[in-house]
Amino acid sequence: MPGPPNAVRRSERARSAILTATTELIHELPYAKLSIEAIAARAGVGKQTIYRWWPSKGAVVFDAMLEQDSGPDGPGLPDTGDIRADLRLLLRGSIAALTEPGVEGFLRAMYVEIQQDSDLGELYRERLLRPQRTAITRRLEAGIQAGQLRPDLDLELTLDLLVGPIQYRWSLGVGGLDDAYADALLEAVMATAM
Amino acid sequence: MPGPPNAVRRSERARSAILTATTELIHELPYAKLSIEAIAARAGVGKQTIYRWWPSKGAVVFDAMLEQDSGPDGPGLPDTGDIRADLRLLLRGSIAALTEPGVEGFLRAMYVEIQQDSDLGELYRERLLRPQRTAITRRLEAGIQAGQLRPDLDLELTLDLLVGPIQYRWSLGVGGLDDAYADALLEAVMATAM
Repeated sequence: MPGPPNAVRRSERARSAILTATTELIHELPYAKLSIEAIAARAGVGKQTIYRWWPSKGAVVFDAMLEQDSGPDGPGLPDTGDIRADLRLLLRGSIAALTEPGVEGFLRAMYVEIQQDSDLGELYRERLLRPQRTAITRRLEAGIQAGQLRPDLDLELTLDLLVGPIQYRWSLGVGGLDDAYADALLEAVMATAM
Repeated sequence: MPGPPNAVRRSERARSAILTATTELIHELPYAKLSIEAIAARAGVGKQTIYRWWPSKGAVVFDAMLEQDSGPDGPGLPDTGDIRADLRLLLRGSIAALTEPGVEGFLRAMYVEIQQDSDLGELYRERLLRPQRTAITRRLEAGIQAGQLRPDLDLELTLDLLVGPIQYRWSLGVGGLDDAYADALLEAVMATAM
């Protein structure tokens, strides 16, 4: 079977280079300084190539963050067959990502912009938040199928119980976010979910 | 026994007028426009009277919000003897306060400033967030004493489970915040806490 035509391969390479460049720049620049120009220069493409796929800087940033979260196959949590182990990785990983020294400032600046700019907020929910929520919801559903979670579980509420306390502590500076917190939170939520 | 001297009574009246004026202005102005001058004019006091008790605008605003939350006797949740009923009022009331049409814009602007200004953030945690958390923690402790909650309950985590999902949905614009959500959240947390 022949591979995809050259043009498609070139497009895929450019798309991948743009997302990689954006992920790198997230570690180097505050949100306000991360421009389409900077991404284009790092990726070795023209600005028009970026605008062909993404309407704005926020859209590239959210897609890069989603891909980093979820791997190249798109959003989706690992399913090792052990719901507790997979959710433990999710919660520990969320805390590690939110408090990573090189990235925390970027994320805080981004969250402020999301709250101030309602178009950016909608884009964030559409491109990053909802896909992340869907990925977690699917993993919970698989846990129900596997008989590890209650069949009548409220998926949206369970999701909020898993991620809400972390987001709350992080955004308001309550602190105390570490692996031990992730594990205690998980056990409390699992007690309602099994 | 004689009452307090006139100077003390005058001070108490001025303090009360300042907090009332601030609460009124919260319903009328965005956070950025609510100035010490505006509070002084509305309360009928001089700016120096405000600065005698409060170091900054943020400090007056947080004290006014705390007093509105908790009544003139200071922070504290009602204790009717029924922990579920008292927490239901807390969660429904939090949602009502966060989504009140005249106040939501003020609160969102204030939350953005808290995230951008680290001194204001620290003042917020000291003057408003920690007293609110302590008030809820005390109510949970009374619930344990009354045999309505598990004696080995993790109070801080239970608090996060109660307020985190609401704060998360509100700040990121997930929506769906109403009495039914408050009640479902309460039942999920109570299932881990009893």
